[in-house]
Formats: sequence, C-alpha cells, structure tokens
Amino acid sequence: MEDYSVIGKRIPRIDGLTKVTGEAKYAADYEMPGLLWCKIARSPHAHAKILNIDTSRAEKLPGVKGVLTGKDFKGWKWGWMPKTREEEPLAAERVRYLGEAVAAVAAIDEDTAEEAAQLIEVEYEELPGVFDPEEAMKEGAPQIYEHAENNISWDFHMDFGDVEKGFRNADLVHEDRFETGRVITGYLEPPAAVAMYDSSGITIWAAKQSPYFVYRHLAACFGLPLSKVRVIQPFIGGGFGGTKNDSLAGDFCSVLFSKMTGKPVKFVYTMEEVLMTCRRRHNMIVFNKMGMKKDGTITAMESRVIADGGAHTAIGPLTMYLTGCMSTLPYKLRNFKHDAYRIYTNNPIGAAMRGHGVTHTRFAAELQMEMMAEELGIDPVDVRLKNAITAPHETINKVTVKSCGLVEGIETIADSPAWKDRKNKKQEGPIAHGVGMSATSYLGGARQRGHQSCAAIVRLCEDGSVDYLTGASDCGQGSDTVLVQMVAEELGLGMADVDIKRVDTAMTPCDAGSYGSRVTVLAGEAALKAARDVKQQLAVFAAEKWEAAPEDILFKDRLVSVKGQPEKNMPFDQLAKIACYSGSGAVILGRGYSDYGIDVLDFEKGIGNCGTSYSFTSQLTEVDVDLETGFFKCTDMLIAHDCGVPLNPINVEAQNQGAAMQGMGQAMYEEFKMDHGKTLNPTLLDYKMPLASDIPNIEVVDIITKDPDGPYGAKEASEGAIVSVPPSIFTAVHDATGIWFKDQPLTPEKIVMALKEKKQNG
Amino acid sequence: MEDYSVIGKRIPRIDGLTKVTGEAKYAADYEMPGLLWCKIARSPHAHAKILNIDTSRAEKLPGVKGVLTGKDFKGWKWGWMPKTREEEPLAAERVRYLGEAVAAVAAIDEDTAEEAAQLIEVEYEELPGVFDPEEAMKEGAPQIYEHAENNISWDFHMDFGDVEKGFRNADLVHEDRFETGRVITGYLEPPAAVAMYDSSGITIWAAKQSPYFVYRHLAACFGLPLSKVRVIQPFIGGGFGGTKNDSLAGDFCSVLFSKMTGKPVKFVYTMEEVLMTCRRRHNMIVFNKMGMKKDGTITAMESRVIADGGAHTAIGPLTMYLTGCMSTLPYKLRNFKHDAYRIYTNNPIGAAMRGHGVTHTRFAAELQMEMMAEELGIDPVDVRLKNAITAPHETINKVTVKSCGLVEGIETIADSPAWKDRKNKKQEGPIAHGVGMSATSYLGGARQRGHQSCAAIVRLCEDGSVDYLTGASDCGQGSDTVLVQMVAEELGLGMADVDIKRVDTAMTPCDAGSYGSRVTVLAGEAALKAARDVKQQLAVFAAEKWEAAPEDILFKDRLVSVKGQPEKNMPFDQLAKIACYSGSGAVILGRGYSDYGIDVLDFEKGIGNCGTSYSFTSQLTEVDVDLETGFFKCTDMLIAHDCGVPLNPINVEAQNQGAAMQGMGQAMYEEFKMDHGKTLNPTLLDYKMPLASDIPNIEVVDIITKDPDGPYGAKEASEGAIVSVPPSIFTAVHDATGIWFKDQPLTPEKIVMALKEKKQNG
Repeated sequence: MEDYSVIGKRIPRIDGLTKVTGEAKYAADYEMPGLLWCKIARSPHAHAKILNIDTSRAEKLPGVKGVLTGKDFKGWKWGWMPKTREEEPLAAERVRYLGEAVAAVAAIDEDTAEEAAQLIEVEYEELPGVFDPEEAMKEGAPQIYEHAENNISWDFHMDFGDVEKGFRNADLVHEDRFETGRVITGYLEPPAAVAMYDSSGITIWAAKQSPYFVYRHLAACFGLPLSKVRVIQPFIGGGFGGTKNDSLAGDFCSVLFSKMTGKPVKFVYTMEEVLMTCRRRHNMIVFNKMGMKKDGTITAMESRVIADGGAHTAIGPLTMYLTGCMSTLPYKLRNFKHDAYRIYTNNPIGAAMRGHGVTHTRFAAELQMEMMAEELGIDPVDVRLKNAITAPHETINKVTVKSCGLVEGIETIADSPAWKDRKNKKQEGPIAHGVGMSATSYLGGARQRGHQSCAAIVRLCEDGSVDYLTGASDCGQGSDTVLVQMVAEELGLGMADVDIKRVDTAMTPCDAGSYGSRVTVLAGEAALKAARDVKQQLAVFAAEKWEAAPEDILFKDRLVSVKGQPEKNMPFDQLAKIACYSGSGAVILGRGYSDYGIDVLDFEKGIGNCGTSYSFTSQLTEVDVDLETGFFKCTDMLIAHDCGVPLNPINVEAQNQGAAMQGMGQAMYEEFKMDHGKTLNPTLLDYKMPLASDIPNIEVVDIITKDPDGPYGAKEASEGAIVSVPPSIFTAVHDATGIWFKDQPLTPEKIVMALKEKKQNG
Repeated sequence: MEDYSVIGKRIPRIDGLTKVTGEAKYAADYEMPGLLWCKIARSPHAHAKILNIDTSRAEKLPGVKGVLTGKDFKGWKWGWMPKTREEEPLAAERVRYLGEAVAAVAAIDEDTAEEAAQLIEVEYEELPGVFDPEEAMKEGAPQIYEHAENNISWDFHMDFGDVEKGFRNADLVHEDRFETGRVITGYLEPPAAVAMYDSSGITIWAAKQSPYFVYRHLAACFGLPLSKVRVIQPFIGGGFGGTKNDSLAGDFCSVLFSKMTGKPVKFVYTMEEVLMTCRRRHNMIVFNKMGMKKDGTITAMESRVIADGGAHTAIGPLTMYLTGCMSTLPYKLRNFKHDAYRIYTNNPIGAAMRGHGVTHTRFAAELQMEMMAEELGIDPVDVRLKNAITAPHETINKVTVKSCGLVEGIETIADSPAWKDRKNKKQEGPIAHGVGMSATSYLGGARQRGHQSCAAIVRLCEDGSVDYLTGASDCGQGSDTVLVQMVAEELGLGMADVDIKRVDTAMTPCDAGSYGSRVTVLAGEAALKAARDVKQQLAVFAAEKWEAAPEDILFKDRLVSVKGQPEKNMPFDQLAKIACYSGSGAVILGRGYSDYGIDVLDFEKGIGNCGTSYSFTSQLTEVDVDLETGFFKCTDMLIAHDCGVPLNPINVEAQNQGAAMQGMGQAMYEEFKMDHGKTLNPTLLDYKMPLASDIPNIEVVDIITKDPDGPYGAKEASEGAIVSVPPSIFTAVHDATGIWFKDQPLTPEKIVMALKEKKQNG
C-alpha cells in the first residue's frame, strides 16, 4: 500500500453520528405547513379490466382534497427503455398484478387518506391470470400484453464459440434445472416522498437511491424541462436496487396532487405495500448445461434462463443482459450459448437487486461445476484453479479483466484451517457438519451508453475548507465516506476538511445512479479529477510564490510544499487564502467526470464491458445440518474478496458482511409465498429475513490487487458476496448431507424430504 | 444595438408571477416542526454600563426554552475589517446606543418570546451620551470607545494636485456647509431568519441581500469551517444596503439557540425594531469649498466631511472612502483635497445605503457649483458642459472612465421642452414653478481587494435546458432576470430554457454580495464566461459532426449552425443530447468568475477604480412650491441615464424610478426625529416615505454608451438616480423661490421660514 493519509484507513462513517443519534432526516420525516397525505388504492385482482371507478364517496369524506385515477395522467407511461414504456402511474383500463395502483387520494392526514382510499369503488371484470413463467410461455396462456406473444417481455441471446463442439470434446456433460427464489430487498425505510409543485417547477424530497431516475420520469410525466425538476435527497434507509431505483405511483400522484392543491404532499408506503406490490428480484429457472474434461477443464456451457418478470418490463432487459454477459467470468470459457427469456406473469414486477442478474446464473454454474467435479473425482479447489482466469484476461464476449485476485482467493480458502480440516469434522448426534466453497465475480462501475457518467464539483472555500458536490447517492452503503476520503487524500486534507453535500438535482451534477457498484469506481474517478483540478489551480499560486513548477507542488497532511525542497512549505489553508485573496479573488471550482470511453459495448449481443472492473470473491461456508429436522445454520464464513485496493477496509468488511447476510437470507429463508398472484406473507414477520442470531462468524480477507481503472486501484465491494454465498451454502449442505439441492431457498422441509427420499431409495 | 434575441428587450421579471401570486416564500414564511421563536431584549439607554442581568423571571415563564446574554458569545465580535471588530451579538458590558441588543430569549411561540424578553431585568449605570458628531469631536466629550480619541471611528484623506494654487487661480471661491439627513432604507420585509444547527453545521434561511457576509460571520462566531455554514436564500423583500448587508443579533442568537435546543429557531424583527435600532444611512455634514473661474471652470475643490457614525464602525470605512474617491467625477478636477471623519455617537449605527457615500458629497458639490455659476452669471447647462468629462478619462486619483454619456445626458436635459420653457413658466397664485437640474455619476461593479469575485456555474441538462448557479442575489432589483437574459443570449436560448437557482452557500459559488451595483456588471461577467465555457464544450461535438472548426459554430434562437453554412444546423436540444449521450456521456459544466485584475487600488489613499465602470445621470426636476405654506411637490422628472447598454430597458426604467423616489423621499420627507439617541418616529406612519400619490411623472431616457468592461457594454442602473435627485430638487426649489437650501430634508417648515426671513431682509 502506498503512503496514503486517509485512503486505506479504517475511517468511521461520516454519517454515523447523525444516524445513530436519530438526527438524520429521512423522507418520511419531512413535515411542512399545510402538508397533505397521499394514499394509493390498489387492485384486489391480479388481472382484470377496469370497467368503472366511482370516487364520489371518497371525495365526499371530510378532509379529502383530491382524488386521482389513471385518466388524470392522460396515457403517459414510463419504462426503462423507450420501447418498454408500458407502466402507468395509475392503471387506467387494466390491472396486471394484484396491488397495482388504480387510484389515489390526498387528504389532510394519513388516516383520512387511508379511509378515503378504501371508499373508492372500482368495478372490475376479472380476466384469467397466469402466474408461472413456464406456463405463461405456453400456447393458449392468457396474454398479458397484446404485443407480447408467449408473454415474452424481453429476450436476450448470446452465442460464442461452438458449444456443440465443446460438448463433444467433453468427458462429462451435465444438464440441470436450478431455481432462484422470489425475494425482495428488505430495506427498513419504505418508499416515501414529500412533493411540491409551484411556479419554480417540481421539488421532491424522495427516498431514492438514484435520484436522477425520478428526475427524468417527473420531467417527462409533467412536461417540464429537467431544469425545473428538483429532487432533494434526504438520508436513505437502504436501497439494494429495485424499488428505490425506479419511480412509483406515489411519486407521480404526490406531485400531481401538489400541482392541483398548491400544497406539499407526502406519501409513505406501508411495509405491507412494499412487500405486496413493490419491485422484487426476478425469480428464475436456469437450465444449465456444462461440458467438462476429466481434468476438470470446462469445454462449453449453455444456459437457458426463464425469468418471472411479473406484470411489467421495468429494468428487466438489463437483468437479462446481466444473466448472460457475466457468465463468462470467473472461469475460462471459450464456448458459450445463452438464451434468456423474461416472461410476463400476473405477479408483482421483477427488477434489479444487489448482485443483479448474476446471482442466478452463477449459482447454477457454480453448483453444477461442483456436481460434475464430484462425479469426475476432482477436488473442488482443483476444478476451480484449473479453470480460473488470471489477469489480464479477455473473455469471449470481450469483457476485459485487468486485475484478478481469484487464484489467490481460492488459495486463501484452500489454505484455511476450516477447509483443510473439513474431512475430519465428525457428525455429532443428528448434527452433520458441512463445508462448502464457491468462487464468483461481479462487476464494478457498471457501464452503459448514454448520459451515464458520474461528475463532481470540488469547491474551495477561502478558509481552506472544501465543499464537494456529487450527484452520487449514499443510500446506506457508506459511499459518501469513501468519496470524501478520495477528495481529502488528493488535496492532502483530513476528513473534516471536506464536506459532501446531499444530492440536489438543481445543484449537484447529473449522475447515473447508485447501482451496479458504480459509486466508488466512477463517482470516485470524477471526485479525483475534480480534486486534481482544484490542486492544479492552487498549485499555480504556490508555484508563483516559490518560483517552482506547478507540477512540483505537493499537497500532503494539510501542508503544501515544493517537491525536493521541503523547507518551502505552508499550510493548505494559507495557500487557499492567498489564492482567494489574490487580485479580485480567484474562485476555485474543480470539476471532473468519469469518462470510460466506450469502444465496444453491445447491449443486444452481450459484447463488451458491462463493468469498469471486476471483483472476485472466493468463499467458504460451514454449516451444521440437523439431519432429523432439516434445520441448518451457517456457523462460519470466510470471504476472500478482491475489491482491488480497499479504500476503507472497515467499510469493505461491512459491505461484504451485509451482502453475505442478504445472500444467506435468500439462500435459506426468504421467499414470498404466492397464491394466484397474491402475496400471502407480506409482513417482515412472515417474510423471514435473517435475524442477528442467525449470523455466522464472518471473516473477511482482502485480496489486494490494484486495478488500473479504479481510483487508487479500487473495485467493488458491495455485491460480490451476495453472489458467492448461495452456492457456498448449497455445497456445504451437500457436504453435510450428500445431496445436491438446486432450488432456493434451501428450507428444512426440502432437506428433510430429500433425506427421507434418499433413505427410502438407498 | 446589435442583433440580440433577449438582450436589450423589455423582458418581464422572471420572479414576477411567484411574487404577485404570493407564492414566493420570504424568510418569515418558513415554518418547521418544533420551531422556536427568538426575541431580543434591548437597552432603553443610549449609553450605559451593564451592571447585572437577571434572566430568572424570563426563564421561569412557561414555554421559554432558553435565554442568552452577551457572556454566552464569549467576547466574540465582528466588524467590516479585522481592525474594526467591535460589535458583539449581545452587548456584554456596555451599551452604546438605545436599542442595542443585551439579551435574547427562545420560546415556543412569538408571544411567549416577546413576554419573556420583557421579563429580563437589566441593571444599568447610565453614562453621559453624545449625539451630535460635531459635539462628539470636541475635547471633553464623552468617549464612546477607549481607543477612539475625539470619537473618531474612521478617517479618510485624499490630497491631489494643489488645492491652494487652485483656489488662487479661481475668480470665485465658495465655502458652504451642507447637511444630509438621518434616513433608512425602508424595505418592506424586515430582517428575519430561521436557523438550524445540527451535526451538519449551520443552516440558515436568512433575509440577506449578500448571504456570503453572514456566512463568514457565522463561521467565525461558531468556530466552524465555511463548508459547514449553509445560508439558503429565500426571496428577499428589498435590500438597499445597510442592515441586510450585515449580520444582526437575531442571526447569532437564533443559531446559538438552535445549537442549545436542537430545534429550528426563527426571528422576525418588528418594523419598530428596524426603525429604532437597525443600520441607517450616515447623516453627514459636508463643508465644501470650490474655486471657479469666470468661464465656469472649476479650479479646485476641498471638502471636509463629518459623518454621524453612531455607536459602532460597521461598514463605515467604505462609506468614508466613497465620499471622497467618487468626488472626482463627473467633472474635471485636477486639485482636490478631502478629509472625512466618521464620528462615534450614541446614535444607532450609520452604514451603507443605495448611493453609498456619494449622495452626500455629490449633493454638496453639485449645489455649490450651481450657486457659484449663478453668482458668475453662467447658465447651469454651460457650467456643466464646461467641466464635464468625456471618455476616455482618468481622474487625478486614477479612476478610469472608458464610456461616458454625460455630455449627451446634459444636452438631453437642455433640449427638453421643460428646460427650454422654464423661464416662461408663470407663478399661479401662491404656486411658484421651479425647474432644476443636476448631473452626477455613480460606480458600477464595485471593486475591492480580497475574495470579491462573482462566479457562475452553468450546467447543461441532457434535454437542453440549463441550470444556472450564482452566488449573486436578487434582493428585489431584478438582477436574476438580467443574468438569465445573459446566459440565454450567450447560448442562443430563450428565457424559459435557463433556470436560475436561489443562492445556497453550500452549492452556489461564493459571491461578494449585492451591493455597489455589482450584480449586472460582475455576476454578469461570470455568467457570460460560464455560458461561453458551455458553448465551447458543446461546439466540439457540433464541429466534429459537421467537420467544422469549433469557433465557427453559432448558437442563436435555439439553433446551432456553422458560420456561413446555414444548411448545417440542428436544434440546441439535439446537440445537447448528442453531447450528453456520446460515449459514457459528457457532463457539461461551464464555470467562470469575474476577474477585474486589480492593478492600482489603494483603499487608504483613495487611488484607483472603486468601480468597474461609471454611470452618468443627468436629471431635470420640476417642482410646484406653495410660497404661503412652503409645501411643494415634484411634478415631473426627466432622467437621462447612461447605464451603458440597457440590457433590459424595462428594468432599467424601474430601477431609475425606484432610485429617484428613494432620493426624493430623502430630499423632501424622510428624517428620523431624535432625542438623546432615542428615535421618536419609529413607525412608517411617522417616518414619512413618499406615497404613490407623491410620485411625479418620471421619464427615463437611456443614454446608450457601450462600456468595454461591462457584459454587452452594460453599466449600473440602480443607484445613479438616487444621487442625481436631491440636487435637482434643491436647484428646482431655488428656481421657484430664489433661495439656496443646503440641508436635507427640505421641509415646508424650512421653506416657509426662509421665505419669511427673505421677506424680512429684502
């Protein structure tokens, strides 16, 4: 590690104090005089025509200030791409999932709004629904959109090399069906906003992890220029993709109510609304076929993915792309075919979530590789090392890996006492021990075409303190702290000298959003450029004073000096004052934006870099399985994560822990129980996320590489472990039980049934 | 006039709608949950020692959340210059004017706070006071500050050429004593703010015309870096210098109360507090001595100014500087001596006001010139033309005038029917007609050393709309409209395409403030630079597409084209999209700051340019004087104003009208009646500002020059007419009565007494 002052240090969160004291204001905390509450009326049917809406009873309720139905939005629709604009703020003619918004009310308080929403009478004509994507693809299934034959919402295909030849060259070919579950992000802060519409345009304090999405949606919906839409970001209580990366009925209705009434309008979704109606991770069926030589070399892979897209397309095209384009990592693969189908059903909408797209196909491929290795008698470590890529590497679909700690990560797992000792662990009573591993990769600094750069403004105050403006959002992941570290390091300042501002789309530069592990990598690049721009402007004044070259001026530990002449030095704040007080006063505003200079990036064909860099996670998980009841527990995890250079190791550790626990929840506990499109367990009591008591011992080992495209060599740290955890749990349970499970979540029922069957069969 | 699309057009105020509908929020309109009210307890004595403050009764009042006295600020003081830091948020040991703040309370509502403030018991030891600056200068007068002998708060001296020789060369030398009155700005919005102190630092929504002043004061008072002080600017209901350009007890106390309680804290001064205790224009005595040849040539001028500074220095040094450095305009003057004394008294504080400093000395010199011309039998027009400067011109104190419409202005007055016809106007009954004129100059784009530049950020949105960030404030003068015109013109856009943001010191770049007619000239320069920066960045994309040189890309009427090849064109928003969607998306942030490259500027000696450019106002005023009662009325005004190129003629007209009426109020009506430091008329009923029915017909003629240092050739338009009005009224009354009055305000009492005396004497 180089000689940094704040980079690479275990620096506590800069927002820690304000959050733990309860001072931090979230969207739901905003109060204003005259504030109205907005509530949404939702469809009780999964698929129905709307014949009539009678709002008269709601309108008559004292305290009600307005009622909206779909017609009020005049047919406006939004979607992730121009060709997938199909979602209406309120469904006007037809509902396609249970809980879809059909009307909204604004009233003087929350209770009145809730009561009024219940007084809205909608006459429906129920339509036959379809809830299983494989059923939905069949001829004769109810068609959810006229344009979508076989209910295909989006399909994505890759074909590289010659898979048939690859399979022919294999000694073993396996074909298996895997399933990933119906899960959701589980943030503690529900969607909420306070909206104001006046002659200055729209101002909205909204709980969004990517405020520039709703910014565009509101401008389009209300026919305003972007300069008239102001999204001011409160503190955000978790994002993880999905809902908080998109817009909601509540957003559009609150703004329209404010336009109608001239009052600020607030909505806060209930947790039941979140769990019943908000965007979820797509549940997927992955048919995976792999060819392997006796020595473990993978010769080909073919995958067919069927994703339950629910009622609308949303960000699904990106999900489908990610299922395939990241399948060529982390193992060498010269022949690969991929066919992904996103299928409309009358379920809630499938969308992005941490580990987006990759969790599904990597789970399948990783597990299948282990199954085949076992069949061929190859050690799980050896099969991985045999196929593992090393940097530099270019995949068949032109993903270029410039740094890779995969082999070192696998070796870290292999060298751990837990792995070495795994064969010696004895079963104790009904409790069987199991140890499993996995090795996966995830992208950092997600790349797309379009207005996708991150930008930064670094502003020098005359006292030497620094304002830092970015459009990138800290939605709980700690990115503000890391970004401030970068600006501080670059300027040779301390953490307290740099003040990062909350995102405000009127003031902070445009940013693509907090998704795809972009912030550290791309907002970081922008921050570095802007800070260097400040340094360059300041260096001129120092250089003049000391008759030195500007490029020889050093900034370190709040001191400015001349390279090689340490006696020529002054405090940073003194130089700031010299600059700001020279002549009429220099106004030093640094600017910068990430520019990843896309050369090859074909979203349709899955060619090119979907990320700026790639993390590699090697993981070990130990489980204790009760063979009588099927209950099991993860006892220990070892995560060897290559995030390049860890800029803030305590945060890297926390992100790995968090991602691992979210992955564990999804592998073991979490699952929406559905009945004809109705979510039967829409409470956090019944939708079982891991409790503190479920958390295993987690050791995070940083595998340090230095990525040439990351700021200070950094890559991503927040998503890798959610990909690596499920396969490592499944291999651990296999180690304990001898059974290969292929469906998430891996519940005690499934284990106990399988053990019973195994006993019966053998 | 060049072919502009929005520059030079009579464009309505962009804030007009929000203001006339009442939507615009001023500081007093801000409400927040848990808000406390702050009230100030004030001294009933003009000069006293504070022996003891008993806050116990106030503290016990239910609803009171905190009480502050001077000690709570631990001796911190502020002032305009480091060496004049003498004012305390709350006086700790001694009060020096009646109404000085001594304690403050915070309570749950305004009434409780008011009641508690009255329950604070202060034990004083009264000290002898002094209320007249000439008395205060005498030996043995009560000394208000230990350091200030003869109560001199600040003195300023200029001596150029050889005045004695000048007077020897004159045919006539006059020496007169003039007086200007005790007046105040008279804004309708009193000082107010809502302050919040939390872990992010200070946030204050404050009624300030120059938010970066209070920004610095709060950082210093509370020991915070500037990056932790956020002044967010509400709409401002008038500034005019003085109070809203400085900080107040209310500002500091609200912030400290918020720090103590964790709640937002609000204060709104009453109009009585404003009129009793807030900063006023200095009243001054000007002893003026002028030498003139028979042909009207001015040979020398010597002035001695005694200003009533009140209890603290505040911005007084700048006032004193301006009384002198601007005296060398608008007439040629090679010998000039100036001695200005700002004197402490136990009156409220004298500070800046529209026409800052210049109104006093220009009134004296202008009137005296007329008096001498009359004595020498020279026509008022001729004496002016004889001495008038023409551009280019450098004064003896190195003020450089690059554009000057003075001669044309004087000729416009001289050619007007009212002037030509003036000798033919007959007295009707007791009503005598009078016509007077004046010619004056004022600075625009006030210059000082230090961190004084204006800056701008112009941000392109991907839909082609534009965000414009400036630290410059529209406090009612319409500058936002003019600045947006400039950005729009430069980018070839319409007014609606550019959105200017309210100042927010966390986000908008630092700005010196809205004073000294800086905004159009200097914030305008910054706006132009930032807009050109955007254009330059955009032009690259157009040039690439059309294989042209970037400098040949034209931006006009929302169209971008190639110079000389009009067929190569596309809409501006299309080019914006191309840029923002090229590669990873360019983030186009233009920046710029005014840089007036000070070469000579000696504040101590009055040498160099105090402005970037200089306006010239020639004025005619007609009065009807009732010779029986002394009552008189201005019936008509003709203002020939050289503001360079009028960027928005409707706004130039409105500014001239407003300044003229403020000048008329001060010349005729307004005056604080004082008794031993106590203001006897602290209501708008008794402090008589002009009513709508007092307003004469005002014709404003734009004398168009093109200043090379102003944006599009513009200079100032908001202060010139306040300087030209009083002497033109006084000469008009002289024309009607034959009497030279030398003291403001010119009341009916003074006229009737003088007429009586004249009758008795002659």
